[in-house]
Amino acid sequence: MTPKSIKAVETKYFTFAETQGFKLESGRTFGPMTLAYETYGQLNEDKSNAILVMHAFSGSAHVAGPVKEDQDPAWWDFMVGPGKALDTDQYFILCANVIGGCKGSTGPSSMNPKTGKPYALDFPLITIGDMVRAQKELIDHLGIQKLFGVIGGSMGGMLALQWVASFPDRVECVIPIAATLKHSPQQIAFNEVGRQAIMADPAWHDGNYYGGALPEKGLAVARMVGHITYMSNESMEKKFSRRLKDDHTGFKFSADFEVEGYLQYRGMSFTKRFDANTYLYITKAMDYFDLPDAKWIPEKGLPGVRFLVIAFKSDWLYPSAQSQEMVRQLQMRQIHATYCEIDAGYGHDSFLIESEAAKQSHLIKYFLAKKK
Amino acid sequence: MTPKSIKAVETKYFTFAETQGFKLESGRTFGPMTLAYETYGQLNEDKSNAILVMHAFSGSAHVAGPVKEDQDPAWWDFMVGPGKALDTDQYFILCANVIGGCKGSTGPSSMNPKTGKPYALDFPLITIGDMVRAQKELIDHLGIQKLFGVIGGSMGGMLALQWVASFPDRVECVIPIAATLKHSPQQIAFNEVGRQAIMADPAWHDGNYYGGALPEKGLAVARMVGHITYMSNESMEKKFSRRLKDDHTGFKFSADFEVEGYLQYRGMSFTKRFDANTYLYITKAMDYFDLPDAKWIPEKGLPGVRFLVIAFKSDWLYPSAQSQEMVRQLQMRQIHATYCEIDAGYGHDSFLIESEAAKQSHLIKYFLAKKK
Repeated sequence: MTPKSIKAVETKYFTFAETQGFKLESGRTFGPMTLAYETYGQLNEDKSNAILVMHAFSGSAHVAGPVKEDQDPAWWDFMVGPGKALDTDQYFILCANVIGGCKGSTGPSSMNPKTGKPYALDFPLITIGDMVRAQKELIDHLGIQKLFGVIGGSMGGMLALQWVASFPDRVECVIPIAATLKHSPQQIAFNEVGRQAIMADPAWHDGNYYGGALPEKGLAVARMVGHITYMSNESMEKKFSRRLKDDHTGFKFSADFEVEGYLQYRGMSFTKRFDANTYLYITKAMDYFDLPDAKWIPEKGLPGVRFLVIAFKSDWLYPSAQSQEMVRQLQMRQIHATYCEIDAGYGHDSFLIESEAAKQSHLIKYFLAKKK
Repeated sequence: MTPKSIKAVETKYFTFAETQGFKLESGRTFGPMTLAYETYGQLNEDKSNAILVMHAFSGSAHVAGPVKEDQDPAWWDFMVGPGKALDTDQYFILCANVIGGCKGSTGPSSMNPKTGKPYALDFPLITIGDMVRAQKELIDHLGIQKLFGVIGGSMGGMLALQWVASFPDRVECVIPIAATLKHSPQQIAFNEVGRQAIMADPAWHDGNYYGGALPEKGLAVARMVGHITYMSNESMEKKFSRRLKDDHTGFKFSADFEVEGYLQYRGMSFTKRFDANTYLYITKAMDYFDLPDAKWIPEKGLPGVRFLVIAFKSDWLYPSAQSQEMVRQLQMRQIHATYCEIDAGYGHDSFLIESEAAKQSHLIKYFLAKKK
């Protein structure tokens, strides 16, 4: 059983690039930029025990602890806390909402100080590299010279890879989970369906929906597609099989099957907590992410860096071959890389599922402990 | 190489249930009903050489031959013709558009003779069983006592299974390709996303869009999702990889990658040739399809019936385990069933892909020839 939650922490805000702006990969300069972040545990004296946790597509800085009324659930509560895999008695854990996000960091729904209105599509295109460089500003601000670890699942894993690619001297342990060095055309295609569903909603209004009706229907459809891809065939079979809803009416095209009702519910509830424009910006950043063959590893290799690469057997969206490719490239360059394909049944989302926690927690805990 | 196309045939129309109506599984009586159908080759004297080909979700009665300007492409031209697997020198091939369809048979876009307007959602819910019983009216009309074969891919394969379940004495060879005895929750879920995308389009107007603006955007999104599921990861990789479009602009959320442009094009062109309400009715019929464990096989077994069950290795939407389950049930009842999992790379759509033709054509040709 999971030990109980860590006690509540406050969300903090760090604002940078107020005067000179932040140079984006696209060439555009943008600012000011704010990161919403949370920290758990204590930074030690030589600032050597910091682990940066990176959230997935729809996550937030709120990794662990109790949940306030207006907050999303803590998305990795079973992983972060005293005695847990990311042990707050040993490590200083921090997590920041990515730029472009809608959970407190600057994104398309943030107020443009120049106009007094939300940026909407005036927000610049951003990349995974931009997200990482923004986080690096925060790490500098906290005076941390070297992160003990970077870890994340799905997009969070892509950020972890980008971290070591961008700042190879500033991180020791890299743990990408259910991630990839680049999106396959199928992954791009599923994201594109989500974007098209949002943009097909007339309420989207070219992104200018703030203060009015939201493109809820389009965003809900986008989330439904996403949700299917996050689950496995097997977990859907277990959870729903072909069971009909208790209140199914057989009335034309209402939800008859439990799986339909579940997806509709998840789709609509997502619209209450996520911004449609952020959906567009972040999926695009993921699709553009591409660490080309071996070029993400510096000429001199990665001395002192070690990798734990985790994939899930039932993950068909980020199939384990993508993780194996990372390991192959690392081992070709004689970099320490441990690979584990976990026999978890929940598909891509396995890293978020508490009942699968033990399988990954132990791996991560002992991998981190190896040198400390 | 595929021999050249068979010469053009005319689409014929058969109308039934004009006075008494057609009793549907839902209990509702509906009529009149028209089936659009095409035939290729000659029916022999004892009417023993007829093979009923059944189309997949978006197919039509136009299986083979040249294409007129206003027609869809012939969807199985490489399979039907002189000397081909379904050899029109030997067999009398026929195919009818399913009821509920939009390719000439009665469906939601057909005129309701009582109101002079299209049925729209006044069209009754239909099942795969209803589709098959409607086809059986046509077979009776043509005076065919026993079909030599029933064959189809995807939904067409479900119809083939339903044929032998409903009329076990009236068919000899049954060839379901890339099919299933029932939709899994994942298959239902993908269909439900398509339906939600259509119904989220304000132009859908509860199905009453005929004569006005069509719910094109919603239908296009639905088709995009479908299209991804019909392809394999591998075939998308081959066809698109991460190549950018020649005219990609990098402008916000326009199509940058070839795969995006392709899906958008396929989605929009689908709206020119398919009715959104038919999308709803037929996907629902597929989702409801459920031949429960071994109950589709009569007590006395299926003497004189033989099965060729074909699955494709790269088909993740209708995974081969679903075909294996059919074979398991048949073999438990000592019914002749040959199973073949073809190593085709195009995913679910492999049965429609000419370059994969040889692999399935030979199997089918020799299976049919065994007794003739």
